[in-house]
Amino acid sequence: MSDLTLRPFFWRPTNLFPETRLVARTHDGIHEYTYDAFGRRVRSLVAALTDRGLGPGDRIATFGWNHHRHFEAYFGVPLSGAQLHTINVMLGDDDIVHIVEDAADDCLLVDPGEPFRTIERLWDDLPIERVVVMAESVPETDIDAVAYEDLLADHEPMRELPPLEEDLPAGMCYTSGTTGRPKGVEYTQKMIYAHAMMVMTPAGLDLSERDVVMPVVPMFHVNSWEFPYAATMAGATQVYPGPSPDAADLLELIEREGVTMTAGVPTVWINLLEHVDEHGGDLSSLERIVVGGSAAPADIMRRYDEEFDVTMEHAWGMTETMSIGSVSRPKARMDDWDRERTAAKRKKQGLLSPGLEMRVVDDDGEAVAWDGQSAGELLVRGPTVVSEYYNRPDATAADFVSRPVGETAGSSEGFSPSEKWLKTGDIVTVDEDGYLEVVDRAKDVIKSGGEWISSIALENALMAHEAVVEAAVVGVPHEKWQERPLACVVTAGGSTIDEPELRDHLADELDQPDWWLPDEIRIVESIPKTATGKFDKKTLRGRLDVVADDE
Amino acid sequence: MSDLTLRPFFWRPTNLFPETRLVARTHDGIHEYTYDAFGRRVRSLVAALTDRGLGPGDRIATFGWNHHRHFEAYFGVPLSGAQLHTINVMLGDDDIVHIVEDAADDCLLVDPGEPFRTIERLWDDLPIERVVVMAESVPETDIDAVAYEDLLADHEPMRELPPLEEDLPAGMCYTSGTTGRPKGVEYTQKMIYAHAMMVMTPAGLDLSERDVVMPVVPMFHVNSWEFPYAATMAGATQVYPGPSPDAADLLELIEREGVTMTAGVPTVWINLLEHVDEHGGDLSSLERIVVGGSAAPADIMRRYDEEFDVTMEHAWGMTETMSIGSVSRPKARMDDWDRERTAAKRKKQGLLSPGLEMRVVDDDGEAVAWDGQSAGELLVRGPTVVSEYYNRPDATAADFVSRPVGETAGSSEGFSPSEKWLKTGDIVTVDEDGYLEVVDRAKDVIKSGGEWISSIALENALMAHEAVVEAAVVGVPHEKWQERPLACVVTAGGSTIDEPELRDHLADELDQPDWWLPDEIRIVESIPKTATGKFDKKTLRGRLDVVADDE
Repeated sequence: MSDLTLRPFFWRPTNLFPETRLVARTHDGIHEYTYDAFGRRVRSLVAALTDRGLGPGDRIATFGWNHHRHFEAYFGVPLSGAQLHTINVMLGDDDIVHIVEDAADDCLLVDPGEPFRTIERLWDDLPIERVVVMAESVPETDIDAVAYEDLLADHEPMRELPPLEEDLPAGMCYTSGTTGRPKGVEYTQKMIYAHAMMVMTPAGLDLSERDVVMPVVPMFHVNSWEFPYAATMAGATQVYPGPSPDAADLLELIEREGVTMTAGVPTVWINLLEHVDEHGGDLSSLERIVVGGSAAPADIMRRYDEEFDVTMEHAWGMTETMSIGSVSRPKARMDDWDRERTAAKRKKQGLLSPGLEMRVVDDDGEAVAWDGQSAGELLVRGPTVVSEYYNRPDATAADFVSRPVGETAGSSEGFSPSEKWLKTGDIVTVDEDGYLEVVDRAKDVIKSGGEWISSIALENALMAHEAVVEAAVVGVPHEKWQERPLACVVTAGGSTIDEPELRDHLADELDQPDWWLPDEIRIVESIPKTATGKFDKKTLRGRLDVVADDE
Repeated sequence: MSDLTLRPFFWRPTNLFPETRLVARTHDGIHEYTYDAFGRRVRSLVAALTDRGLGPGDRIATFGWNHHRHFEAYFGVPLSGAQLHTINVMLGDDDIVHIVEDAADDCLLVDPGEPFRTIERLWDDLPIERVVVMAESVPETDIDAVAYEDLLADHEPMRELPPLEEDLPAGMCYTSGTTGRPKGVEYTQKMIYAHAMMVMTPAGLDLSERDVVMPVVPMFHVNSWEFPYAATMAGATQVYPGPSPDAADLLELIEREGVTMTAGVPTVWINLLEHVDEHGGDLSSLERIVVGGSAAPADIMRRYDEEFDVTMEHAWGMTETMSIGSVSRPKARMDDWDRERTAAKRKKQGLLSPGLEMRVVDDDGEAVAWDGQSAGELLVRGPTVVSEYYNRPDATAADFVSRPVGETAGSSEGFSPSEKWLKTGDIVTVDEDGYLEVVDRAKDVIKSGGEWISSIALENALMAHEAVVEAAVVGVPHEKWQERPLACVVTAGGSTIDEPELRDHLADELDQPDWWLPDEIRIVESIPKTATGKFDKKTLRGRLDVVADDE
């Protein structure tokens, strides 16, 4: 048999769906073409890379948004045998420099505009030798760069693509960890093959040539959740929404192209809904929105369903699992359940995807019950889960175990990578139907008297009060109970709500025992946030100045 | 990452769909249970095999029909690290003995009844040491055999399954070639993983937990077209129809279990339709029938569609491609075509499945046009295509090329197995939309004056006449044209049709140039057939006693 490589992912759409459309919003307007034209351009890109001596062993970085040139690089780079390293354009300068140095990228494909200006600003600190601007021409600059379109124009499509092997590194992505330096992971040709096929299955994202797919999740986030590969193999129509798309841009593309399926973090869909509320818009083509990163608010899910007949599908995944690792849909036998009951399933992260195995374990490494209540850390393994971090034996040792803790007394020596489990850092419950739900991050869960209290559950319950704008709950040290929850709440301007009132609300709202209730609820001016807008609980804990033995 | 093995195929349904039903018709009635019970029994089977020292390096044969015990062996054997070798119970004695000797099977799982009697009859010629009868008890016999149920009862479910590697041989199947000895092919754990995931995708057979699947294609035919693995990973309800199921058996299972999807050769579905015509029956649950092996008659496809709202989906595949390699469905952009036009697509073998690549070449190795007319031999490659025959370097040399003939002048030395193409022996056309259609077998196509004439097309046109019961067309040597077609026709009892009349019919019916018409149409008593009921053209050619230069 042939190796598992990206070659058939390129063969199938270019030969069987040559006339199917590809659409991209770019910095200078909408670009439309077909898989046939895409195929010729990718072959030219491979020729250009090969011509410059780039291939197996070389790492080529990209720094850009979702458009057709970036999409072509997703194929041209790994089809040349080289490795595609997608860098997050939203990162801070220090992290960008660190990542480029760590990965030792020597060629960079960069968007014009803001991303190019960032690279220009950091140029003296970057080890990069060759720069390609993903545009018609190179902006005025001192950097010796070439325009992507010139590169392609100079090279005839390569007729016979170079042979590939399945263990070649084909992709690379850094986690945007909130603590410490971003960690790099590498994806081989085989891993991308396996993950993209899984994504195509009905239990995955159920992709076919009938879909008109618009991946809003950036191409610098874990291969855009594998859409560029899975949707291409399926022969689907694809719509790439370009640089920093706002709700109006997305709506325009949905209406214009008849998008049936899209994917991204909850904020995007909240903004889209607000935009449609204010300005109107036609979402009738849309059937599904895949939501990951964090959970969508129940009310948003309900509104899309009831008002627009759009199903929001929660998914879970990590950089280390190549994105999608579970999807939540009611099972066939739940077809006669009422809306409320199926909505409760839909708001979870769902059923583990084909190819993966999981264990959920407590602090002692004992498996927790699948009762929808008992929480533990999620461990996963499978051919689409990485088994190490790049250049980081320390992080690899911390985040991977060769056996679930506690299962086998022996050491982790002597097991093959096949036996390795990834410690996801996600605290989850699994219900009787096998649906997993992320209740917290391991570093944020509050460990009180041997039991775990979900900071996220408390925050959601607090934020359900109309006077609460933001709520963050952290664990503070406690002599008797090890840790106890403390809540910080930002209230709406003009609100006179006080702690007792909030405590009553929480007791009503929270479907949990009394000992889950925070020992203190502080009303504060603001809650510190990270660069990506998440609560920065580390900084918050430092600010709190709490007394450990306040009972 | 973990290796690509069958382990997650076992993990997912037993953990996420434990309550989903598995149903089997057996020699002593209907057996019903769940994935949960299945999981425990498979773990007991692995324990029993491991206990007997069977594992990696061992080959365990099965000789039986589609039922739950055979299904358990599909998992228990490869999960133990051993290789599952499924033997066709319909083969002649010589072939059975040859296959068992060639594969050196040392353990055999056999059905009670006819299959067991066959093994008993051949016992002295078989190198087998251990026999397990897939039943409650062992029939009276001199063979030292153990009952499958006793084996399981003696072993507690194994808690921690043994580690597996992706390159372990996990399956084996022999082709039922009409010429020469059957040839064996081996499937690794990785190949089964890759093929079963492909089968699950919407472009494959589109399997989900919502399906109630009844694989009628025997489990001794190319892993029952991968249903036992793909449907299990999907978490589908599965119905196994047991020993020699007839139309009444199938109808009963469809009605009883609400089967939504089934699969098998055309004869099965013709018989089912006749049965329903005569005795009535409820096919309302049925949505799809996957048809392979040969093409279903257009009228049968139309009747299932119009009268029962059941879509017949043509598929193409071979033992060497692990079954399914293409499926025919109209594309989304054909939705507004009329019924006749889409039916013309559906009767083809369709679009190549994800993971494969193909080339269609003429005798000189030149690619033929994708015009729906130009015929050539189909070459395929991919991670689900074997790259050799077991123990048969001669056949491997004949049926695999390292480059398509003619593409590269050099020798085939120095290429990796990844570069190998399988010569399928199928003569196909590919139309402008990429749909392939098998028009003949390479050994049967008639090569006349540098052009190819499809024997199958002539036979179908002849058989479209109501007075024609059977028609076989072969090429006979011809001095000027190399070969010319000669047709042998069996007419209906009492018919007085003669050659001129048949020739007129053929000229009307056949949408091809005049030189396609046979030089002679002979009315004969019978046409010789192979053990599996196909026309035996080799014997027919020998009988014909044709003169080469009859012009």
